[in-house]
Amino acid sequence: MSGPAFGATVLTLYPEVFPGPLGVALAGKALEAGIWTLKTVDIRGFAHDKHRSVDDAPFGGGAGMVMRPDVLAAAIDASHAAGGPLIYFSPRGRRLDQDLVGTVRDAGSATLICGRFEGVDQRVLDARGVMEVSLGDFVLSGGEYAALALMDAVVRLLPGVAGNADSLAEESFADGLLEYPHYTRPRNWEGMTPPGILLSGDHARIRAWRKAESERLTRERRPDLWRRYTNEEG
Amino acid sequence: MSGPAFGATVLTLYPEVFPGPLGVALAGKALEAGIWTLKTVDIRGFAHDKHRSVDDAPFGGGAGMVMRPDVLAAAIDASHAAGGPLIYFSPRGRRLDQDLVGTVRDAGSATLICGRFEGVDQRVLDARGVMEVSLGDFVLSGGEYAALALMDAVVRLLPGVAGNADSLAEESFADGLLEYPHYTRPRNWEGMTPPGILLSGDHARIRAWRKAESERLTRERRPDLWRRYTNEEG
Repeated sequence: MSGPAFGATVLTLYPEVFPGPLGVALAGKALEAGIWTLKTVDIRGFAHDKHRSVDDAPFGGGAGMVMRPDVLAAAIDASHAAGGPLIYFSPRGRRLDQDLVGTVRDAGSATLICGRFEGVDQRVLDARGVMEVSLGDFVLSGGEYAALALMDAVVRLLPGVAGNADSLAEESFADGLLEYPHYTRPRNWEGMTPPGILLSGDHARIRAWRKAESERLTRERRPDLWRRYTNEEG
Repeated sequence: MSGPAFGATVLTLYPEVFPGPLGVALAGKALEAGIWTLKTVDIRGFAHDKHRSVDDAPFGGGAGMVMRPDVLAAAIDASHAAGGPLIYFSPRGRRLDQDLVGTVRDAGSATLICGRFEGVDQRVLDARGVMEVSLGDFVLSGGEYAALALMDAVVRLLPGVAGNADSLAEESFADGLLEYPHYTRPRNWEGMTPPGILLSGDHARIRAWRKAESERLTRERRPDLWRRYTNEEG
């Protein structure tokens, strides 16, 4: 057996929340099987005063506390492996999307910095070549949520994790479209039945219906994705 | 003392992953203090065959399994409180943003459906008035990650949770801009010092510098937000 396909290192003040949801289902089985590895680094372990301080008041005043550059840099320098991206989660960053998930997966490893408080000292981000990544246009109390989501999105793409490679090929964003609606048993549920075509056994027509539904949903719900899709097709 | 300011109900196949990261730091203290409540509902408890099946093969064929409408609807009907939104996390949904976080907070409660497998039967979404919400343009193995993130984003806005209301007013998206850079001690770190203006003690100039930095970052990194901001200002 070869080594793990992906290695994640997470810098956090709350190592106890990992693996959390990554410890169950497919990600948990893959972790146990050694398909990927998860190492947590407690940032507080790099504090150097007797109170183990990791934060301090912002220069210029204002609310909240800021993570100290010296403490965070020491944690990074002790744990970040060359090659993989060094990511800090922040609403100011590049939006996480499936392309970035693929890039992180291809890198084979990543170091994920989970901020708390108001944020981290800007000098660390500048000096250590940190990539800022945003989970979306909302504010969280810490980067742990984004780290969990990114790791899950990466791990499910690793060979041997998802049951069926076909299911990866058909899901949302694989072809630039949202996914078509799904139906399963019972056939009659509260008087509603699935679209008849899905029961026809005619696989070419089913494929065409699903493609048309994906296109309709994308057009209706995500004009931005639809424009990109139609430009690429045309 | 009055009742909780927010009540979350989470429908999941993995109740053991909650509260997870919501059990630490401010969200955890607020949970313990009764400022908000978190109830998990195990969808598998509503399966009615001897194998406790919650999923089945999709009509029309294809990869993966789909969550059964009868089982999920039974879980919803037994646990969803009138008034609060009923949310299913899916890449096909409306993007989660700070406006939606505020709407959920204002509702005072929410029921969050965490899908697994390929997805859930479309008829449940149609019949139960489910709002589809997306964490972003990437694919996760389950809705639990999105549920955790949404609850954290909501809880930190509840009265008595964040230490200082000012810090909420100044953060990213509060005014349509990304947040300005932060600096803290030590003043000299690896030969780098904070911008001198932050050490000046001149609060009006500091405020102006921070606003200008927020505007610069938003213009450079998020032309979409910048357009909206300048349209609203103009």
